[in-house]
Amino acid sequence: MRDELRADLLEVGRLLVSMAEAVRTAMARATEALLTADRAICEMVIARDAEVDELHRHVDQQVYDTLARQAPVATDLRLVITGIRIAADLERMGDLAEHVAKTALRRYPAPALPPQLREVITSMAAVADRMAGKVGLVLTTQNATLGAELESDDDAMDELQRQLFSILLHKDWPHGAEAAIDGALLGRFYERYADHAVNAGQQVFYLVTGETSEPPDVVA
Amino acid sequence: MRDELRADLLEVGRLLVSMAEAVRTAMARATEALLTADRAICEMVIARDAEVDELHRHVDQQVYDTLARQAPVATDLRLVITGIRIAADLERMGDLAEHVAKTALRRYPAPALPPQLREVITSMAAVADRMAGKVGLVLTTQNATLGAELESDDDAMDELQRQLFSILLHKDWPHGAEAAIDGALLGRFYERYADHAVNAGQQVFYLVTGETSEPPDVVA
Repeated sequence: MRDELRADLLEVGRLLVSMAEAVRTAMARATEALLTADRAICEMVIARDAEVDELHRHVDQQVYDTLARQAPVATDLRLVITGIRIAADLERMGDLAEHVAKTALRRYPAPALPPQLREVITSMAAVADRMAGKVGLVLTTQNATLGAELESDDDAMDELQRQLFSILLHKDWPHGAEAAIDGALLGRFYERYADHAVNAGQQVFYLVTGETSEPPDVVA
Repeated sequence: MRDELRADLLEVGRLLVSMAEAVRTAMARATEALLTADRAICEMVIARDAEVDELHRHVDQQVYDTLARQAPVATDLRLVITGIRIAADLERMGDLAEHVAKTALRRYPAPALPPQLREVITSMAAVADRMAGKVGLVLTTQNATLGAELESDDDAMDELQRQLFSILLHKDWPHGAEAAIDGALLGRFYERYADHAVNAGQQVFYLVTGETSEPPDVVA
């Protein structure tokens, strides 16, 4: 690989790792804000999503410049194009963290989360955090095994979402429709965050193994 | 523009128009299945989403081949890259139609939609259908005005979503948490479908006007 191309790709990789770190922090903070009904943290998460969007634009511009200047082919071309896809998944993960923060803010100063949901949402947030961390590691190490682990993490997330719904739909649910809707939407935000982490990880996996990317199924 | 590049771009455009038509039909059918609790239509929508995914793979392969063979630059390069983004939005619209069908199927043979929600969901589906139709037209005509219209359609969708939530959260809501959650998630599926239609339209708009693509805000 030519030195200029290598430098361009390193820059794309560096930006993607920054994005992965930013969206991991965003979801961790959003969860904290949700659990503690902390308005300042909600507002910080919402404000800082603009930084993720800005990084996304940088990635796209860098990819565009690389394609225009270097005209890569074969594996190099695939590597460059993969940057666009991963950046799109990471940006969406940032949006979902922002949605969690907005949900918390909408109920402020009341807590958005009834006591019955704290444990399952805390578990979902822990899985989300682990997955975002792995995406960062996969980007840094191109370790395909870690990418595959993301799929079993995603199964754990789906199982937690089933638990969440069984609580929401229990005949003794005491909090009414509004809290049930909030809970269902929050569950969906974490679950979609996980889906995008899997997607991002798969992109790296397919790149390393040379298999064709197949759009993954998404759980409704 | 060279003839080979023009032919490649026409092929990308042809595939994208097919995708836009397919995801418009998918959402129209999913809505019909939802309103009539029709199991066969649900299953057809779910099965045929694989065709949208297949078209998506064709677009990506065609873009990849075009970049490798033609090494386009400047506007041509932007045009080619835009194909990847639009295909991703269209595929996601297909997934969302599938989610609507799966929601209907999960409650079958009961209707997933209580009578109070039929009118607002029918309106949301009508806006979604109009928007998907415009995406197809924008792709065919590269008419930037139509692309801009998508944003006001999206405002209409957001307003309908507010109406939906005000019904779900009314103190006299008689259907319990499960139907409220279904209603909220269905609303979100239509609203996200509209967001992706706006995104796809904006890609064409930015392409025609030469403005930089800015990731749009997404309503939680």
